[in-house]
Parts: sequence; structure tokens; C-alpha cells
Amino acid sequence: MPGRFSAVGMESTEVSNLSKFNHHSRQERFGALLGERGIDLAFFPVSGDLEYLTGFPRKVASFGNIEHAHAWLLGGLIAPGKDPLFLVNQGYASFNLPQGVEGDVVYVKNLDDSVNMFQEAIGRFGNLGTVGISARTWGTTAIQIMEAAADARLVDVSDMLGQMRRIKEPIELEAMTTASRICDAVMKEVTPLVAEGAMEIAIAGEVDRLMQVHGGRTPSFDTGVWAMGPGSGRDATKRTSMDPLPSAVGVSFDFGTVVDGYCSDFGRTIHIGEPDGRYVDAYNTVIAAQEAGRKAATPGTSAADVHSAVVSVIDEAGYGEWFRHRTGHCIGLDTHEKPFISEEDQTLLEAGMTFTIEPSIFWPGTVGVRVEDLFVCAENGAESLNDYPHEMVVV
Amino acid sequence: MPGRFSAVGMESTEVSNLSKFNHHSRQERFGALLGERGIDLAFFPVSGDLEYLTGFPRKVASFGNIEHAHAWLLGGLIAPGKDPLFLVNQGYASFNLPQGVEGDVVYVKNLDDSVNMFQEAIGRFGNLGTVGISARTWGTTAIQIMEAAADARLVDVSDMLGQMRRIKEPIELEAMTTASRICDAVMKEVTPLVAEGAMEIAIAGEVDRLMQVHGGRTPSFDTGVWAMGPGSGRDATKRTSMDPLPSAVGVSFDFGTVVDGYCSDFGRTIHIGEPDGRYVDAYNTVIAAQEAGRKAATPGTSAADVHSAVVSVIDEAGYGEWFRHRTGHCIGLDTHEKPFISEEDQTLLEAGMTFTIEPSIFWPGTVGVRVEDLFVCAENGAESLNDYPHEMVVV
Repeated sequence: MPGRFSAVGMESTEVSNLSKFNHHSRQERFGALLGERGIDLAFFPVSGDLEYLTGFPRKVASFGNIEHAHAWLLGGLIAPGKDPLFLVNQGYASFNLPQGVEGDVVYVKNLDDSVNMFQEAIGRFGNLGTVGISARTWGTTAIQIMEAAADARLVDVSDMLGQMRRIKEPIELEAMTTASRICDAVMKEVTPLVAEGAMEIAIAGEVDRLMQVHGGRTPSFDTGVWAMGPGSGRDATKRTSMDPLPSAVGVSFDFGTVVDGYCSDFGRTIHIGEPDGRYVDAYNTVIAAQEAGRKAATPGTSAADVHSAVVSVIDEAGYGEWFRHRTGHCIGLDTHEKPFISEEDQTLLEAGMTFTIEPSIFWPGTVGVRVEDLFVCAENGAESLNDYPHEMVVV
Repeated sequence: MPGRFSAVGMESTEVSNLSKFNHHSRQERFGALLGERGIDLAFFPVSGDLEYLTGFPRKVASFGNIEHAHAWLLGGLIAPGKDPLFLVNQGYASFNLPQGVEGDVVYVKNLDDSVNMFQEAIGRFGNLGTVGISARTWGTTAIQIMEAAADARLVDVSDMLGQMRRIKEPIELEAMTTASRICDAVMKEVTPLVAEGAMEIAIAGEVDRLMQVHGGRTPSFDTGVWAMGPGSGRDATKRTSMDPLPSAVGVSFDFGTVVDGYCSDFGRTIHIGEPDGRYVDAYNTVIAAQEAGRKAATPGTSAADVHSAVVSVIDEAGYGEWFRHRTGHCIGLDTHEKPFISEEDQTLLEAGMTFTIEPSIFWPGTVGVRVEDLFVCAENGAESLNDYPHEMVVV
């Protein structure tokens, strides 16, 4: 039945970040954008998009689909000038929404006819000419929307909402700074664990534990701790192993945590034993490349041009073949947001955009170094949300 | 450009499970099903579906979207009587497919026109009347398929493939048994860590580490370790905490790991200190309920009837209000597969289906008990893939 609900046996309490972020203002602004473009309604599954617009919280995803009856309709409907309408199935409600949902909810129980209830919910929004969906809306749901609004055209509104999401409000920057500083603290605490014979996976586990001890909700992606160098034939595609760390390798870290829904993403490389000249040169090159990117990342510069500024430092040092990925990506409620700081992305940066600059030299059997910090675009060059030093660390 | 590819700087080697499972036979059978129903082509994103049909491996999912340029087209196209055609974007290829892909591949680089290349790929399959997508195909991809095959009807083929996937081959049962026995071993190893004052999150971290030590690829979902009972006001929606364990509580475990792509899912509750009569009664009720479900789960019985058999034991003991979830779910390459062992699911069980039976009594402030094992449907009642005992454990 439509209406507010709270989980069985639970008081309905405010979701903490519902009170902290101004979701109503976001909904108004997004509703206006929809209206301008003649889009009558948009659907969002549980996602950063939905959390951004309404505060509806996400759960950590897992390896296999975690699904209950009628899960295809789980999400929210947003229309210009109206309050959101949430669709919540019983299985998700029972164990993932102990706080219930503030707002209008169609609560679908196991034995209900979900297709019918979905059609009725869509029908409440009247005549629909165009309906938006986000990029990761389930295919099933897209098909059901087409059934429910047979004459409507289906469009992808992710980039529309992305244009709102990519400029961070001060309160979002605060959350991301907190999440970044947790990484700084954890990097300092795990450094003494790095030694010949230690297991990467044990260090990674300690990173995950410490991030939570410092107040992170969950890792924002699978934590990586991996050895590269003359003492190891590894490349950077295997993110942890149970092999003992050899001596004379660089050990790269890549991890992040989530605060108030917002992700961080951080990386450093430290060396076991006295490094050779190649490592020192590569290390200095990567640090210089990141700094070139930071300086270039001013409002009005294209994402591709920031990437070029970083790549050219690494090219000039002769390591171009071994910088195999993009320079970085915007970040916020999702770990990877657009624009990407990458060769194909011509988006012009704006003040308040947050992104990583994470150059690497990954030369299997020779040297592996990456440094990664989180930056916010500003007039005189990007400013770091991390404060961990860039000096070479040898353990 | 179309054609085989291997990641830069890497030898193209067989994906280990490509040689182990007979993907060609699966493709033939699924292609025949598509043909019978007049479906000309089906798209699958990186998922259990795609791994089942082709061996294309998945990566652990993360909290935030992990996305690179053109990621919307990542996946495989399957058509009756043809080899699969994979679509792989550069960002995914570089760090997630070090082994490359065996088969025909459209490899989309950052600077390529992915929409054009996708349309060309779809066009290779000729005139398309109906195109299938899986439930979790991205909404973006669904829209692009409709653009590329403007006259085609889009249908959801997840349940079609699900009907193949739910009957497990012996080689699949082997993998799931291995994954289940890892849970048994880990449960035994972590039991001595459970004590007043220990942190749930530290025990959960040790569960995750030990599952990997025993050969698991990754947890199949977020590991849960939580206290319930008179010593704790908790319900079962918070799966771990950093609070120290109190005395006089039941500590429930819920975890699983992945072997050769196949998931396990296991649970036990153990008690800290001498349990009161209520706990003993609830514990015995849950064990008896699971056994009733096991006996009922023969070929030809409906999933809903297995659920009823379990519920009635708990109802008769007077705890009906506190068994708030379904009895279980099928499991395989995904943690939750259909049919669900649940009130709404009228599917008749067949020999070779694998599912959990996981009754609980979660009564906040009073008692919390769950037991969970993995079963395969067989003539004389379901057979467990776990061999961990059901006797009450007190620490």
C-alpha cells in the first residue's frame, strides 16, 4: 500500500544524512532541469544518484547479485515539482532499511503483484511523454517502465544529474576531506607493517579495519597492496596476494573509505630496503607528474589537458610506455564520477569539482610506483584534500 | 577493432575456468532456447550470467560505481548458433583482464566512438526482430540497443537463462562443495575468538582473511558477525559493529566465499556464557525448522511449500513473529538466484537445484539465532554441502 512505512518492530527515525544535506533543494534543481528538457519523470535505483537526491542510503555491494522478490522496482521516482515516490520491496526493507523511509513509499510485499503496483505508481504521474532513467537502472526496470508508459520515450539522464553532482557543495567537501584524512591516518599507521615476509593480504585487512576504526562506513573499493620491482615479476593487475613480500620492492597502496556517503581514494608507494637509482628516478618522476597535473587543473582547463600535462612529464622521463591508465577521475558519492581525467574527456573543469590525480609507472620486473591524492579544482591550481607527505619512504 | 586481443604487455593465456567448464555446450543450449522463442540476440553485462555462458570473469563490486570510458558496452553478445562477441573497453581491459579474452572481441579504446562501434557490432547479427537483455543490463545499454536495432522488441531473458543455471552440473556442485567446506573450516577456526570484549569487526575481518587463506576468491557478500540477546538491544540489520561483545548473548555468523566463480553461504550462532532456557529453546527450534525444510525439499515440492514447512515449526514454538525473512534462496554463480525459497515462489524444485535453508528467530533484546547451510535437492530430501555440526556451541 502507498504511504509512509517503517520496518517492522522499528521506530521510524531520520536517516542521519537526511538532516545534514539539503535534499529538497537538490530535488528542486533537478526537477527544474527535467522540466526544461521536457522529461516528465525519472527513475533511479539504489545508487549514488538516489542518495544524492533523496538521502536514500546504499548498502555495500557484493560479488554475487543480492536480490529479493520484486527487487527490480527498488528505487525512487522523481518528477518536476513533486515529492519523490519511493518503491521498496519487502526483502530489502526488512534488513536494509531499519530506519524506514521518510516520504511517500509504495511498499511491495512478497505476495503483492509488483508489476501492477509499479504501473499504478508510474500512473500517478499522469501523462508521460519522456521518462528518464539512470545509466545503471536495471534492464528489467527499463522494460517495465516502457510497459507502464507505453507511449513515452526513454532517455538516459545520468549525465544531466552528473552535471549537478560534479560541483561539490561545502558540506560535501567536508565529508570528502574527512574521508581523505582517514586515509592519511591509516597510511601512517600501516607503514610499520610493511617488511620483507609480511603478507599483502594481512596489510590490506588491517587497512580496511583501521579505516572503519577511524569512522569510515565501508571501503569505497577493494583495497590494493601489491609489490612491484626487480624482486617481483608482478604487474599491477593483481591487487593483493598471499605471497610474503620480497625485499627490494616498491609496495603500492590504493584504498579509500566512505564518510556520509562520500568516497575517498588515496595511494602511496613505499620501498622495502634501500632503493636503486631506477626506483628513485621513477618515484621522483611520478611525484613531479602529479604536481604538473595539480598546477594545470584550474577552472576552464579540459580534463584531457590535465591528463596531457601529467603524461608529458612521464614521457619526457622515458617511462611513457609504462603509464598505462588515465590520470584520474572525478569522485564523490561514487568512486568514479565523470568527468574522467583522461585523454577522451574534453569537459572543462570548474571550481568545486573533485578528482584524483594518480600517475603511475608500472613496469613489471623493473619498477612500480603510484601516488594518488584527491583534489578540488580552484583558481590557482587544484588543492589537495589529503595532507600526507610526498617524500620517498623507505622501510 | 574487432578481433582477439590480449592486454598490453601480457601474454594471452587461458582463463583457468574457461578450460574447466564446458561453456560451448552452455552457449549451444542457450542459443537453442533463444532460437525457440524467436530471440535473435541477447546482451549480458559482466555478471554471473556472462561468466556462466562464456567464462568471462567478474571482479568484486564496490560501494561506488567503478567506471571507465565506454563502460556501458562492456559485456557479451550471444546469438543462436554463433560464437559470442565480447565488447571490452580500454579501462576495464587494462587492469581487469590481464589474461585477455579468448574469442571474438570488439576492443574499444578511450578515443574510439563507442556508440558507432556498438551499432556496428549489433549490426553484424543481421536483421533483429527481438533482442534479449539480462535483468541487470545497464539502462544506458538498453537504450543503446534500442537505437542500434530500432525495429527490435526488447525482452528480459534472465529467467530463461536462470532455468538453465538453477540445475547444477556435477562440476558446479564440486565447486560449491569446496566453497561450503571452506566455511566449515573457517567457522571452526574463528570460534575460539568469540569472547566477551572481542570486537565483532575484528572477528569478521579474520573470517574474510581465513576464507582467502583456504582458497576462496573473495567473500560472496559482506560478512556478518553480530550479537543478539538479553545482553544486547540489537536487531539483525546491523551486520557488524565495533562495540565489544557483551556476555550472555548469541553471536550469529553469516558468511560465504567464492570458488571457481561459485558462491557459498553459511551461518551459525554460538553463545557466550551459559545460555538461558529461552536461548536453548530458540536454538533447538531453529535447528528443527531447518531439518523440516530439508526433508520437505524433494523434487516436485514447491519453493513456497518448503518455506511453509520451516515456518510452521517456528510458528508452533511461538516465535512466528520473529522469523521475519524468507527461508532461503537458490545459489550458484550469484549468491541469490531464483527460485527463492519464499512464500511468493511457486517454482517446483528439481534435483540438482542448490539453495540455502536459513531459518532464524531474531527477537531484539531477547534472543537471536540463525542456522544456515547449503543444500542440493535430491529424491530423499535435500543433501547438505556443508558438514559442520548443528550441536549448540557455548564459549
